[in-house]
Amino acid sequence: MTSPIDLLRRQVSDLHQELVRYNLVVWTAGNVSARVPGEDLLVIKPSGVSYDELTPENMILCDLDGKVVEGEHSPSSDTAAHAYVYRHMPEVGGVVHTHSTYACAWAARGEAVPCVLTAMADEFGAEIPVGPFALIGDDSIGRGIVETLQGHRSPAVLMKSHGVFTIGKDAKAAVKAAVMCEDVARTVHISRQLGEPLPIAQDDIDRLNYRYQNVYGQQSAAR
Amino acid sequence: MTSPIDLLRRQVSDLHQELVRYNLVVWTAGNVSARVPGEDLLVIKPSGVSYDELTPENMILCDLDGKVVEGEHSPSSDTAAHAYVYRHMPEVGGVVHTHSTYACAWAARGEAVPCVLTAMADEFGAEIPVGPFALIGDDSIGRGIVETLQGHRSPAVLMKSHGVFTIGKDAKAAVKAAVMCEDVARTVHISRQLGEPLPIAQDDIDRLNYRYQNVYGQQSAAR
Amino acid sequence: MTSPIDLLRRQVSDLHQELVRYNLVVWTAGNVSARVPGEDLLVIKPSGVSYDELTPENMILCDLDGKVVEGEHSPSSDTAAHAYVYRHMPEVGGVVHTHSTYACAWAARGEAVPCVLTAMADEFGAEIPVGPFALIGDDSIGRGIVETLQGHRSPAVLMKSHGVFTIGKDAKAAVKAAVMCEDVARTVHISRQLGEPLPIAQDDIDRLNYRYQNVYGQQSAAR
Amino acid sequence: MTSPIDLLRRQVSDLHQELVRYNLVVWTAGNVSARVPGEDLLVIKPSGVSYDELTPENMILCDLDGKVVEGEHSPSSDTAAHAYVYRHMPEVGGVVHTHSTYACAWAARGEAVPCVLTAMADEFGAEIPVGPFALIGDDSIGRGIVETLQGHRSPAVLMKSHGVFTIGKDAKAAVKAAVMCEDVARTVHISRQLGEPLPIAQDDIDRLNYRYQNVYGQQSAAR
Repeated sequence: MTSPIDLLRRQVSDLHQELVRYNLVVWTAGNVSARVPGEDLLVIKPSGVSYDELTPENMILCDLDGKVVEGEHSPSSDTAAHAYVYRHMPEVGGVVHTHSTYACAWAARGEAVPCVLTAMADEFGAEIPVGPFALIGDDSIGRGIVETLQGHRSPAVLMKSHGVFTIGKDAKAAVKAAVMCEDVARTVHISRQLGEPLPIAQDDIDRLNYRYQNVYGQQSAAR
Repeated sequence: MTSPIDLLRRQVSDLHQELVRYNLVVWTAGNVSARVPGEDLLVIKPSGVSYDELTPENMILCDLDGKVVEGEHSPSSDTAAHAYVYRHMPEVGGVVHTHSTYACAWAARGEAVPCVLTAMADEFGAEIPVGPFALIGDDSIGRGIVETLQGHRSPAVLMKSHGVFTIGKDAKAAVKAAVMCEDVARTVHISRQLGEPLPIAQDDIDRLNYRYQNVYGQQSAAR
Repeated sequence: MTSPIDLLRRQVSDLHQELVRYNLVVWTAGNVSARVPGEDLLVIKPSGVSYDELTPENMILCDLDGKVVEGEHSPSSDTAAHAYVYRHMPEVGGVVHTHSTYACAWAARGEAVPCVLTAMADEFGAEIPVGPFALIGDDSIGRGIVETLQGHRSPAVLMKSHGVFTIGKDAKAAVKAAVMCEDVARTVHISRQLGEPLPIAQDDIDRLNYRYQNVYGQQSAAR
Repeated sequence: MTSPIDLLRRQVSDLHQELVRYNLVVWTAGNVSARVPGEDLLVIKPSGVSYDELTPENMILCDLDGKVVEGEHSPSSDTAAHAYVYRHMPEVGGVVHTHSTYACAWAARGEAVPCVLTAMADEFGAEIPVGPFALIGDDSIGRGIVETLQGHRSPAVLMKSHGVFTIGKDAKAAVKAAVMCEDVARTVHISRQLGEPLPIAQDDIDRLNYRYQNVYGQQSAAR
């Protein structure tokens, strides 16, 4: 019988292929993690292993301080940030980090992506916000993510001069948020190259977001 | 013997792969439908199912009010818009909806794509027009599509702040229009980044469009 | 034994895959042809057949007036332009037509691509010139190509508001020119988005082009 | 038993596929080489052979003056530049040359890519510098690379109006630098299209680079 942790290992390994498929990552620069439900554990990508070589077996199991519990490689160098999010946001079951091009282009200017597409109102319910500039090595990145996303509708944050972190109820939802974040960051960027996108009224953003997150979800559990 | 509806199920399922191939969609955000000839029925993508998992069998059969006649999943959340088009435009046999990047960038500014390429004169015969801002949930989107495209040469409409809908005599023609719409939206966008594209005289647009839609069609039924 | 015409059929069929690989074409909008050496014949893509379905067998054999000699489909609707080039430029053995994005973006403004990259000096030896606006249906397009390219170092011409035609000693050389044309059109476009590319002295362009077309060729016949 | 040179042949052959995968090259325009450790030899791509046809067997073995020691084809026309680097930078074990789009766009303007992303601080530790305009045919290109990179943290140089050369302790490291160079050249370009990226303090660049090149390396030899 396959254990819940083994299922998560496979899911996290497979989800990295979505980052590749949607061109969100180059070389080894991006990672997915999942919380082990009901335990103080997470599953995450090994550091410096190429996406072609990821398997359920070489995923790393860590505790929520980012210490390795099981695994031959070091965990992703971003593990501390993932772990901080799991410790401080109990509703989060998955975290993704990428340097996807268009999202990073906004992050490099420290500018939020304005909510000017109905798909963005659905998925993000607001602008995609900017988090602080923070160096790797302590809790600064994790704290920046949590402080920006707590109480915000958006599951994505653009960390200044750095990249994107997304959260979700599970790893798949966090990957979807990463895919949609790059997609809208790109579309809004391109739109702004030749003028100013039209604003969407706050009221309409609220209605779209409410419907997508509630009615839509009840209609189709499959999504 | 394969029934006409089974053939349509396969065709609609397969045509979604063209949306993937031409990078018109991410995750599950785009859909193709076909009218069942001679019946008040349509075949459409199931909601929230990824493009890898589409099969002829999981396509959804609906009536022209968008109610499910056969299918295990919910139909695409855009079904009401597709159905409205079939009810009000009897000549339409296929409808496609995407959020393709460059077309959406024009839609976000509420700007039509000007007809400045001979391929655009061939295929669209005019600018690609902008439809109204409309919320999902009632007939607003369908009505916006029909009011914009009725009497217009273009088989594509840019719904303001939202995305693209295209129509065709069958689903394949609607998919072709979606592919060409993104292609010309991209080329004209890029051209305008460094100056103003040269206009094509209305007379030349008319001649190109007439030839492409008539003479060309008579020469080669295969196209 | 395989006849020379059968070999050409295979080569022309296969070379269309390079147009697909390098994203120079969408749907069926681009074509390759080859002159049959020593005969007043050419081999060209059938009209409206998708790139997935091309085979050596469904390539069309035409005379140099563009009349079909052998083939079940109609030949490409651009056959008249290809044929005109072969009639008036005896040194040309291959012709390619595309609507590749960046080249078309320059063509839509009627602007030549300036020679500001050493790879462009190698391959094109000059700017990539603009040909006249010309409608399909008579010899205007073919004449525009020939008048622009005769006596010009560039094997590529940007037909105003339309697309690209390239020529070569054989079909492979014409395909290479189409690939390189889009590549330099894209790089120079992107460079100009943020300033003005540095000019290369005419003398250096001449030296690079001479070396590439002569010394380089003598060193390695394989290229 | 496989000799060290045979292993290098395979490695160099395989690494060219990474240039293809990351869209750094078109047609045959880009090459990878590796120094044979402890010998005055290098392994490099044959000239004018397409990436599909590269095998360990058709790689070319040259001395450090660029003369062929073993191989049926001519070596890459850029061999003299690679060889010059190996002669003058004994710590270098791999060299890569590409005309990747965004890096070339900066090179065409003769502008360095500013260090405004944490991933750039990690990998390049500084701006990506511009080398001189230099013609092929003598030691000018090699000398320009060495003079620009000696004493510089960046493993990549943008040769003015030409393209990119990257170096590394081995061929894989040089390929990684080429991939990351295009990635950051693209992101910073796109960021600057709509404003000015925020600077990163020199102190923070230093700390990030030190950590990535030292602490990070010690943690995970696998990267």
